[in-house]
Amino acid sequence: MTLTPLLAQPDLPRPLIDEIVRSALLEDLGRAGDVTSQACLSPDAQAEAVIRARQPGVVAGLPLAQASFRQIGDHLAFAADISDGARIEPGQVVARVAGPALLLLSAERVALNFLTHLSGIATATARFAEAIAHTDAKVTCTRKTLPGLRALQKYAVRKGGGSNHRFGLDDAILIKDNHIAVCGGVVEAVRAAKAYAGHLMAIEVEVDTLDQFASILQLTDMERPDVVMLDNMAPETLAEAVRMNRDVPGKPVTLEASGGITLQSIVGVAETGVDYISSGWLTSSAPALDLGLDIEIR
Amino acid sequence: MTLTPLLAQPDLPRPLIDEIVRSALLEDLGRAGDVTSQACLSPDAQAEAVIRARQPGVVAGLPLAQASFRQIGDHLAFAADISDGARIEPGQVVARVAGPALLLLSAERVALNFLTHLSGIATATARFAEAIAHTDAKVTCTRKTLPGLRALQKYAVRKGGGSNHRFGLDDAILIKDNHIAVCGGVVEAVRAAKAYAGHLMAIEVEVDTLDQFASILQLTDMERPDVVMLDNMAPETLAEAVRMNRDVPGKPVTLEASGGITLQSIVGVAETGVDYISSGWLTSSAPALDLGLDIEIR
Amino acid sequence: MTLTPLLAQPDLPRPLIDEIVRSALLEDLGRAGDVTSQACLSPDAQAEAVIRARQPGVVAGLPLAQASFRQIGDHLAFAADISDGARIEPGQVVARVAGPALLLLSAERVALNFLTHLSGIATATARFAEAIAHTDAKVTCTRKTLPGLRALQKYAVRKGGGSNHRFGLDDAILIKDNHIAVCGGVVEAVRAAKAYAGHLMAIEVEVDTLDQFASILQLTDMERPDVVMLDNMAPETLAEAVRMNRDVPGKPVTLEASGGITLQSIVGVAETGVDYISSGWLTSSAPALDLGLDIEIR
Amino acid sequence: MTLTPLLAQPDLPRPLIDEIVRSALLEDLGRAGDVTSQACLSPDAQAEAVIRARQPGVVAGLPLAQASFRQIGDHLAFAADISDGARIEPGQVVARVAGPALLLLSAERVALNFLTHLSGIATATARFAEAIAHTDAKVTCTRKTLPGLRALQKYAVRKGGGSNHRFGLDDAILIKDNHIAVCGGVVEAVRAAKAYAGHLMAIEVEVDTLDQFASILQLTDMERPDVVMLDNMAPETLAEAVRMNRDVPGKPVTLEASGGITLQSIVGVAETGVDYISSGWLTSSAPALDLGLDIEIR
Amino acid sequence: MTLTPLLAQPDLPRPLIDEIVRSALLEDLGRAGDVTSQACLSPDAQAEAVIRARQPGVVAGLPLAQASFRQIGDHLAFAADISDGARIEPGQVVARVAGPALLLLSAERVALNFLTHLSGIATATARFAEAIAHTDAKVTCTRKTLPGLRALQKYAVRKGGGSNHRFGLDDAILIKDNHIAVCGGVVEAVRAAKAYAGHLMAIEVEVDTLDQFASILQLTDMERPDVVMLDNMAPETLAEAVRMNRDVPGKPVTLEASGGITLQSIVGVAETGVDYISSGWLTSSAPALDLGLDIEIR
Amino acid sequence: MTLTPLLAQPDLPRPLIDEIVRSALLEDLGRAGDVTSQACLSPDAQAEAVIRARQPGVVAGLPLAQASFRQIGDHLAFAADISDGARIEPGQVVARVAGPALLLLSAERVALNFLTHLSGIATATARFAEAIAHTDAKVTCTRKTLPGLRALQKYAVRKGGGSNHRFGLDDAILIKDNHIAVCGGVVEAVRAAKAYAGHLMAIEVEVDTLDQFASILQLTDMERPDVVMLDNMAPETLAEAVRMNRDVPGKPVTLEASGGITLQSIVGVAETGVDYISSGWLTSSAPALDLGLDIEIR
Repeated sequence: MTLTPLLAQPDLPRPLIDEIVRSALLEDLGRAGDVTSQACLSPDAQAEAVIRARQPGVVAGLPLAQASFRQIGDHLAFAADISDGARIEPGQVVARVAGPALLLLSAERVALNFLTHLSGIATATARFAEAIAHTDAKVTCTRKTLPGLRALQKYAVRKGGGSNHRFGLDDAILIKDNHIAVCGGVVEAVRAAKAYAGHLMAIEVEVDTLDQFASILQLTDMERPDVVMLDNMAPETLAEAVRMNRDVPGKPVTLEASGGITLQSIVGVAETGVDYISSGWLTSSAPALDLGLDIEIR
Repeated sequence: MTLTPLLAQPDLPRPLIDEIVRSALLEDLGRAGDVTSQACLSPDAQAEAVIRARQPGVVAGLPLAQASFRQIGDHLAFAADISDGARIEPGQVVARVAGPALLLLSAERVALNFLTHLSGIATATARFAEAIAHTDAKVTCTRKTLPGLRALQKYAVRKGGGSNHRFGLDDAILIKDNHIAVCGGVVEAVRAAKAYAGHLMAIEVEVDTLDQFASILQLTDMERPDVVMLDNMAPETLAEAVRMNRDVPGKPVTLEASGGITLQSIVGVAETGVDYISSGWLTSSAPALDLGLDIEIR
Repeated sequence: MTLTPLLAQPDLPRPLIDEIVRSALLEDLGRAGDVTSQACLSPDAQAEAVIRARQPGVVAGLPLAQASFRQIGDHLAFAADISDGARIEPGQVVARVAGPALLLLSAERVALNFLTHLSGIATATARFAEAIAHTDAKVTCTRKTLPGLRALQKYAVRKGGGSNHRFGLDDAILIKDNHIAVCGGVVEAVRAAKAYAGHLMAIEVEVDTLDQFASILQLTDMERPDVVMLDNMAPETLAEAVRMNRDVPGKPVTLEASGGITLQSIVGVAETGVDYISSGWLTSSAPALDLGLDIEIR
Repeated sequence: MTLTPLLAQPDLPRPLIDEIVRSALLEDLGRAGDVTSQACLSPDAQAEAVIRARQPGVVAGLPLAQASFRQIGDHLAFAADISDGARIEPGQVVARVAGPALLLLSAERVALNFLTHLSGIATATARFAEAIAHTDAKVTCTRKTLPGLRALQKYAVRKGGGSNHRFGLDDAILIKDNHIAVCGGVVEAVRAAKAYAGHLMAIEVEVDTLDQFASILQLTDMERPDVVMLDNMAPETLAEAVRMNRDVPGKPVTLEASGGITLQSIVGVAETGVDYISSGWLTSSAPALDLGLDIEIR
Repeated sequence: MTLTPLLAQPDLPRPLIDEIVRSALLEDLGRAGDVTSQACLSPDAQAEAVIRARQPGVVAGLPLAQASFRQIGDHLAFAADISDGARIEPGQVVARVAGPALLLLSAERVALNFLTHLSGIATATARFAEAIAHTDAKVTCTRKTLPGLRALQKYAVRKGGGSNHRFGLDDAILIKDNHIAVCGGVVEAVRAAKAYAGHLMAIEVEVDTLDQFASILQLTDMERPDVVMLDNMAPETLAEAVRMNRDVPGKPVTLEASGGITLQSIVGVAETGVDYISSGWLTSSAPALDLGLDIEIR
Repeated sequence: MTLTPLLAQPDLPRPLIDEIVRSALLEDLGRAGDVTSQACLSPDAQAEAVIRARQPGVVAGLPLAQASFRQIGDHLAFAADISDGARIEPGQVVARVAGPALLLLSAERVALNFLTHLSGIATATARFAEAIAHTDAKVTCTRKTLPGLRALQKYAVRKGGGSNHRFGLDDAILIKDNHIAVCGGVVEAVRAAKAYAGHLMAIEVEVDTLDQFASILQLTDMERPDVVMLDNMAPETLAEAVRMNRDVPGKPVTLEASGGITLQSIVGVAETGVDYISSGWLTSSAPALDLGLDIEIR
């Protein structure tokens, strides 16, 4: 087995990885480490292992798996056969690890927990993206992420072919019904946002009715928000919104459809002509992808 | 609305909560906080909100929701109508929050992300537990958890009526096939474990065949492991193992069935008479339970 | 003296404050705390203090000063006479603290270090903003901030009447000369950015010549970046760019002037009609504003 | 280009550097890293860069710049042409970096923010030190530092030829007017300090008048403080204090002049014969030194 | 001198070491590092050092000493002559370090503080273990450990030949008198514990009288706790408990003697036939073992 | 029982306490908290407890015990009957706690671990101090402390009536034999230190012979170090050094005796007339003082 270094993913820089991998290892090692392997294995035992897909899907998280094996000690070699974002088939080898069996087994579960969770998200995103590949619509995520895992989950969405929505409360304005109610109307809320936002902060506004949408389209190019989220609308309503937007003078707004998106419903939504379709399910509920580690100890 | 203090869950002590809630808030607030609310709301605006179930299930995570609202500032009052572990129906109020609208909206998503994820796990666990309530078998979890969330996820399993397996690599011995291979047999591996373990460290061994299981039952009471995991066995095989265990002289071992457990398959497994049924799916893949926050700003 | 609670700044949430104040206190307390006060003061000695401006300016950082006194112990009361963003004159009382003299003196320097630094930035920003108040141009900051202090420094810019640029490398795209060189031209670089960016990520491109700028204006509304940074251009050149932008069909781009901005040069730049003027000096080099604490120990 | 390892500065040990550099990188990378470079650059693109002075001054912070490039990934080589404390002229190359363009650009701003800030302090200190090089007086700093940056700022003062004052509240006693007032007089305060301090804790006392100073000089060798700070005194008064100190029997105290020191006033103060001149401006307000990174991407 | 890498202790994984060593170095380096060596040594001075035992005992902590020298900089080589758990005689070389004198001296005290403390615990444990080597009893520790050092102290107990008790409040059940009082009796408390515990959580109960013990022995095999702690009983009483346990039908419980164990009293306790003897003194009070570093600077 | 707030120790500020108590609680709570109390106690059960001395000694660590009970939850009241530094007799009540039994028992061991360890150090220090109370010598500690506990251990030394030596490598210069060897002599090493040190950094030099000491005394007042450590000298030699120091013209140096100090040897050393006697044993090896918590659950 020849082991070669894995090129770091450019959009998952090492400082973003190191801390979370360290925490995950400490969480699993507890206060005495892998007592089973200590009881049963000689410190000198060497092992070779392969990480294999057990389901078809899209892989994501290899830099985290690599970091898990690297941080457990200085003695393990790791090499990936493919890169994050690649499609994998059952039985396919994804990566290889070699070195002291005791260290390898101590990091196995942490490495796999990262890999199966993020590959699950990438795979779900890819399924959505493929279903609508015949349209111009793109899949995007939300802030419905798991605490502490947002940067990784949004990375997995990208590797699955999706696009990222806001990273947090601070990097774009998203006006919702409560803000509109307080401001006295959707137009007033957009004006307040325009007055507040700097020149690099995008503004999105959520509308529930075509009337609200119409009032936005009546604004000038300079007054309009960048994006309008059409919330929980039927395909026919979405299609009407797309038409209204196309007919508006000046630069149209970007349209995002949102609410209860499933693999079944997404095609109909995409074919209305909206630009983006957002799904919280991808990061809150997509099931893990099954990958396993097969080890040979010598 | 009368707000009363929520009693801390006894098995989720405050030091276990505070740090992860702080990290989750910082992850969402980024470097400028909730810019939308800053743009649209007056700092003086007051709000009242209720957190409501939108699906039936079992709630878990209320202390984390409470901590999210408490840490965002000193001005929000929070009260839960029910406790973690309670069943909830769609439309039912779970908790109430009141105070400055700007603070309330800044913490909303973080509070809900904890609540929907953990309630999802509690609900899935409860479904499994109910399906086998007519047997003596108990549902238990695994180490297939999400990085950084293990303590919380295992807590949610308990609130759903499940039992916890190992918390990490250090608090019990679980001998798997690789350990057995290196030690030269299942009996030899169990002996190595007995020699290593202290008097408060339980020992479990995974077997793939009834032959392996038989060799364990031939050990004396003092030599036997505490638990045997019957991995990926058909119900008939499990039933045979249960019979063998019952007929053994002395104290029988505890039996755990494992491998690909679903809501469909769990009944058949439980009716074989095994003591525990473990599922990694509960913590790696159970979908979020839908809960939402309805707010009234004044 | 009547002490009333200070309302938290809505755009500086408590989780963003607490950690940095804790670190600053620990940095100053070292391994034995305030040995001088321990040597000279009785633990029972009570004190009242006022924080006073010694220079005219704009105050920023009061929530951090408050947090410094709060974290040092539970016994100090703090009240601000004014809010962040207010103008102050020499001799004016900004805030008051009362309680055990030993605790008050232990936190004094940390509180003042936050207050004088951030008020220095707010004051410098306000000077720039006032100088160009007769134009439509706005002052904005850059990523030339001090390590660990970015969120606070950007907050101070806002309190001085400025607008924020990017918060980091991740929340907007800013294409510079190196990116343009690699991509083979400014138009190609903008296209690469458009293909990569999600719908809420703004795109800015830096140009050094009017030729580059012209090539951007030839793009369609949908292809154009949101903002063009005109780097190191003379006022005449900036004015020409403003004219070119005004005459373009469709929605004009936002224009940002950048490079060596001083209190002397900013007026000429603003009067060209650009929308934003960015200055790294505000956060890397603005001098501290002098504020002091006068204490009366009883 | 030949790259050689930079010898770590002996007085800035690696554990002091690593954490603050990590925080600074995370602050800038946010939740998605350098999106611009990801959009515009190939992960394979290689680059060479030089860091050049754009103003004359004294460099400080090279180990921090090096650590910034090292922590962003394992693939960048860094070499310094000079060491911290060296004088630099406009156009002079200070250091070189080579490796993947994407990593290099991701760490550029953080590396420069350390370097320009600390070189600004070193340069300001060196200006003060040169102005009084014909006297025996030394420049020293204060605790007016920026939160989180004290160890680095004090290091920069040393590299500029200055001497360090207290590092925090715990490592020496500095008696101020408030302490004196409470103790009932300067002599009483010094006695309280002597009784409290261990044998390795130096004692300094601040005096505002020559009368106070005289009362200290009347103490015996063993009773006297190590240092007297002459606060806000005119040069004539300082000179008189120097004479009084010289004429005292036994070992004279060390004299520190303090208060409103500028490049203009420092010469007159130094020529009075005081031993140390302290300036808070050096660490709270010295402007950044302009250094830039010129990159060539291949 | 030939330096070879030290194999990491399998039961003290690197993630468990790195953080505590970093904290210990920062605690000692403070805000300016080793000022003495900076004053007196050239950065180029090279040194070789040996760590030698000055007392007979059992060594523990070598991976921590190694990590101390590694983290202080990249330039020191470290090699251990023996492994943790080895017996050492006065004058015996334990490990060697070589590299820049300034770095070596900066890490010396931290490395020795780990080594002397943990070797002290290992030595004390070994003394206890030797004294009872002619019996089947084993020495075990308690939760009377020093804050932040538990994992290391328990590791040292293992290296001295002892066995570990609970690692914390969460990994086993230990029922004490207060729990018994609340539950209404020892049998009721054991039943509550059995109902709560999962299948891998061992249960121990503390009894003060043989009557309490007898009531436990009357339980069936399945109802009994795993371990009974016989608290503060005289050897005769312990011997009687051993007899009662031997005569019980089914699987006997494991017996742990506890309370005021000394090197004098432990033999008598062990000879009663109990299985484990626990001592809080080992981790709360065992004196450091004297080891020193002899250095040769060139 | 009346509970009143404990005044924070002025020289152990709250930011120094909070983090270490949090870590200690997390270390003990692990991933599931106090499972025994959860199994056996009702969440509603209330308790009252007293902390009592079981040995005579000097108490230290009450603020840490208080913080342990406070951080475990908001519901426990704590009051100390005495303050740190007070002498205690067996049976004497030191502090009282009241509130939910489950929370009280969860924090008990952590609170006691702080209290018994620090009281052990304070008691040992007090024994040394009493033994030499008829002389002018003072007991002082060293840097032989336990990793992570230095600030607390040095605090305990103060509470026992001792004086603190250096807090770390950075706050004073201590020249040892290796430094002297490199510098070419004790006088040369002192000169290097004088040239390096700022005006608030004390200088101590270790000498092994009276010849070395004599060469130091030949320096002028301004050239001499502040303190000379007389290492491992017999009482006669120490006495001779005291005489030499007394006869020197100008200000004598402070004398510190060091090396193998015991309760037996310290009297003879103190009676030689040295100023300070340092002992590493106090912080590395002093046994814990026995204190216990007696609880009454209702």
